[in-house]
Amino acid sequence: MKTLNDLFEDLLRDVYYAEKTILTALPKMAKKAGNKDLSNAFLSHLEETKGQVDRLEQIFEMIGATPKAKKCFAIEGLVKETEDAMSEAENKALLDTALVADAQAVEHYEMARYGSLIAWAKQLKLDEAVTLLQQTLEQEKAADQTLSKLSKEINQHAQAA
Amino acid sequence: MKTLNDLFEDLLRDVYYAEKTILTALPKMAKKAGNKDLSNAFLSHLEETKGQVDRLEQIFEMIGATPKAKKCFAIEGLVKETEDAMSEAENKALLDTALVADAQAVEHYEMARYGSLIAWAKQLKLDEAVTLLQQTLEQEKAADQTLSKLSKEINQHAQAA
Repeated sequence: MKTLNDLFEDLLRDVYYAEKTILTALPKMAKKAGNKDLSNAFLSHLEETKGQVDRLEQIFEMIGATPKAKKCFAIEGLVKETEDAMSEAENKALLDTALVADAQAVEHYEMARYGSLIAWAKQLKLDEAVTLLQQTLEQEKAADQTLSKLSKEINQHAQAA
Repeated sequence: MKTLNDLFEDLLRDVYYAEKTILTALPKMAKKAGNKDLSNAFLSHLEETKGQVDRLEQIFEMIGATPKAKKCFAIEGLVKETEDAMSEAENKALLDTALVADAQAVEHYEMARYGSLIAWAKQLKLDEAVTLLQQTLEQEKAADQTLSKLSKEINQHAQAA
């Protein structure tokens, strides 16, 4: 990697991989969740994620690059932690608590990465890309807040279980 | 895992592993960084991280558990991405840009995890633990903001390089 453009494309490919991985993880998380609102939140974020993948593809096109995923080791680790939680939690209430936490860790990873992509796109004067990336960042923040709201009731259930 | 206490201790062990991994990564990052302020920011956060490890050990003691790390696959992935960036960037300006982004991804992972630990500690009425965890969370947020401030100059250099 020699230029900021190279770095931007490289991180775009990392995030593209991450979003595609999340597309596969979310239906499993929605199915496993015991709390109906949590399950619906995962399904709703699944739909948003499809749009986020589409935005990334638009940005690849804007910079004249082919949409190509690059293995993202961070999301692999995060998804592994989620899978471990799904197998280790011995009741639904506890599983939901772990799922909220792991999903929030994923959201935070994405917030960090979209934050960097926005900063670099601004520096590179890729104004349309900035707009698209900001739309996605707002969705990730909102998804994180939804999980925080749901967690109160879910944590109470976990303690009572 | 059967109870919220089990889950709390499990995530504590995950974060303990993460902080210890960061203790090893930060000196390398400080050494590699070309920007003096960035290098100093990593060294300053290294000192904070030592205090964070100490706080985690205090919390293990509060809950009557032995401080024991559990392999955190997310931090392993994040550190691998940082190491890849250190080997792939072909100049110092670009390396600094990648280091800021990767460090912010690590900070965001920690913010998410401390956020969950605080929520669970509140639910479990572990008031002293809440206080300690909040001190660490504030440090992680401040470290992220410091990186955001430094990134403006660093990104400009990367584009000019």
